[in-house]
This record gives sequence, structure tokens and C-alpha cells, in this order.
Amino acid sequence: MKKAVVLLSGGLDSSTTLYLAKKKGYKCLALTFDYGQRHKKEIEAAREISRQAASPLKVIPLNLPWAKDAIIDKRKMLPKRRLKKIPQHIPSTYVSGRNTIFLSLALSYAESIGARAIFIGANALDWSGYPDCTPDYFKVWTKLIKEGTKAGRQGKKIEIKAPLVDKTKKEIVELGKKLNVPFSLTWSCYTGGKFPCGWCDACQLRAKGFKEAAVADPLIA
Amino acid sequence: MKKAVVLLSGGLDSSTTLYLAKKKGYKCLALTFDYGQRHKKEIEAAREISRQAASPLKVIPLNLPWAKDAIIDKRKMLPKRRLKKIPQHIPSTYVSGRNTIFLSLALSYAESIGARAIFIGANALDWSGYPDCTPDYFKVWTKLIKEGTKAGRQGKKIEIKAPLVDKTKKEIVELGKKLNVPFSLTWSCYTGGKFPCGWCDACQLRAKGFKEAAVADPLIA
Repeated sequence: MKKAVVLLSGGLDSSTTLYLAKKKGYKCLALTFDYGQRHKKEIEAAREISRQAASPLKVIPLNLPWAKDAIIDKRKMLPKRRLKKIPQHIPSTYVSGRNTIFLSLALSYAESIGARAIFIGANALDWSGYPDCTPDYFKVWTKLIKEGTKAGRQGKKIEIKAPLVDKTKKEIVELGKKLNVPFSLTWSCYTGGKFPCGWCDACQLRAKGFKEAAVADPLIA
Repeated sequence: MKKAVVLLSGGLDSSTTLYLAKKKGYKCLALTFDYGQRHKKEIEAAREISRQAASPLKVIPLNLPWAKDAIIDKRKMLPKRRLKKIPQHIPSTYVSGRNTIFLSLALSYAESIGARAIFIGANALDWSGYPDCTPDYFKVWTKLIKEGTKAGRQGKKIEIKAPLVDKTKKEIVELGKKLNVPFSLTWSCYTGGKFPCGWCDACQLRAKGFKEAAVADPLIA
């Protein structure tokens, strides 16, 4: 059975990606990072989802003492604004090099276990403005793997797959529903309260997706 | 003063790279990783050298539970053979994705502090056969940074500099001597004994460099 490493943050997109990878016939090994997020709720969500999906999860602690971004630095305010349109600038929740770090560790894991794919739930359409979530960025990774790994030098492929990259949030919710993703276990909100805050970018993008797909979000229903 | 992040393993090459970056006028921030090496001796060496060079060092713990390579896995034997010529295959000391992980973390650090360069002491000529030490590999990084970072998107450069990549070990020793690198503080050997083993690839390449440069290695003199 072909193996894949799946980056799983516990949110809607990465959970849908995990279920999609399973559907495509991969034995999925999930990977999440404890990098000093504001709250541990998304790590708990990743645990629950990986259990539900019967995909073993590794939680890797990551110490980034220089990261002072809003998602990590609790003293910094998260942006609170009504998202009228998808932002064209890079928001304050940007963490320098985040996906590059995540993918490099996923690559190390994938090559070590002979996995031939790495799945990431990045989304560049209904996105949050992050530069490390775009198709061009992932294309460069293909070259990096070809040059910089033993597998790549031996002509074996380790593919970076970002199947949601050009989907709208509406399409992601529809896909998740079709795949029976346990939406009630996912967590998208940047804050770690009992209920989603409803105000952060992640909450608003999620709400937009559920609304446009005419699906009830079990977290707020 | 322009800033640079310098990957410092505590060996001959990375130490020479640090002194070269200083000479070029950079304020250098050194970065090393505790990733479960067989011994902590190279981390101690990195500490000593960074102190000597007056370049603050960060030591980042890295948990790579899947890494079973010879440098990490103490049960695995290190290759012991006389190096008659530079190996053309990838040796058992290869750690999947190692430089990709190191560079991704250095990139995150560099972007966070506004550094415009990342120095790495990789060497592709008198090399150990690692695929993530070649000029082509580093060229791909330039593209990755351009696409995947806020700095890159804003047209600011963060350059990966591998100034030793096409030098022989002889030339590295000569350069290090000219720059007053404290050779006695550096540690290249894969084992962590009181003295270098003399048998591992790293010891043999180092010895070749000192011999050809007609410089005495203070570690074995």
C-alpha cells in the first residue's frame, strides 16, 4: 500500500485533505507541530481526527524562539475586522517560513519511511494571503526534492500534493461532506475558547464556506 | 550593520564560514541544532566558536523520531574504510532532509530579524556525497525564498550563501588560517571521544585538508 505523510493542523482544510488522501488509497501518516500556537486546541483536534481516520499521528515539538507573529505571540492582537473580500496583503498572522519548515520535516519523515507523497491542505483561492500557500511555491518544492534528497537523486519521486490549492471554501466544505469528514472534530479558529470566536480570519473564511455550501457547521449550529 | 544567520555545526567548514561572513562585514547570528547527534561534542564546539567569534548562538532542539541514520542511531555502525577517493554514492550518514530542515529554520529566523543572508558551510567538492550540499540544490532555495516568504514577495532578498561549496578541503584550511579561525575549538569527527577517531569520513577529509595545506591540525598535533 502506497504511503503518504499528511500535514494535519486539525482544521477544516487539512482534515479534508487527510480524508481525500485516504480515499485515493494512501496509507496516511499524519504529522502536526507544537510550535507555540496560542492554544493547544488545534493539536487536540488533530489527535481526534487522526484517531477517527485511523491514521497514526506524530506531534513534533518545534521551538521557534524568534517567532513573534500574532498566532504565536499572545500579547499581539489578532486582526478583528469583517472580511469583505479576501485580503490582498500578507496578514499579521504570517509566521516566517512556516510551511517551509513543516514541509522540510514532512519530507524528512516521508523519505525515511519510503512515502511517495506529502499532502498539505494549503489553499490559495479563499486564502489568508500567505505566500507559502500558492501553486508556484509548491512547484519549487518539486525541484528541491529532486535535487536535495537521496530519493530524488535516485529518480524516485516524493510528490507535494496540495489538492485544495485552487478550491474555494465552498468546494472544500462540499468535498469534506462527500468524504464524511467529521466536521465537528475540526477546529479552525485562531483562539482556543470553548466556541469559535467568529471574528478571526479563519472563522470568517470557514463560515463563508459552510454558508455558500449550504451546510450547517456543527461547531456553531 | 547588515545581519546574517550562520549555520554553525562546530566543524571546520561551518566555523570557517562564520569567520568569512564576519570578515565580509555581517553581524552574524549563529544557529545550531540538537537533533539527536551521537554526541554533544559538536554543540559544545559551536558554543565555544560562537563565543570566540562574538556571534550569539541559538541552539534549537529538533525531534526527528523517524531518523535512524548512522549519525543519529547509535546502534548503527559508522562506515570505517580508508577513503581512497571521494565517494560517489550517498553514505549511510545521510540524514533525510537535514539541510532542508536546517535552512528552513534559518530562513524563518533570518526573515524574523531582517537578516539578508544565510551562510552555510556546505562543500560539494571534497564532500561526503550528500545531495543537499550542491550548488544546484542551493539555487533552488533562491526560488523558494522568492516565492514562499513575505520578504521575497516584497522584492527583498534573503540570500543563501555557501561560500565553500566549490572549494577543496585544502583551500578551506588555507582560508581558515588566513581568517584566524580557532581550529583547536572545532570538531569534525562523527564520534564524540576525547580525540578524533581518525577513521570516519569527516576525520579523513579533515586530515586530507590539513595535510595538503601543510598546516598542523591542533586537535591531533
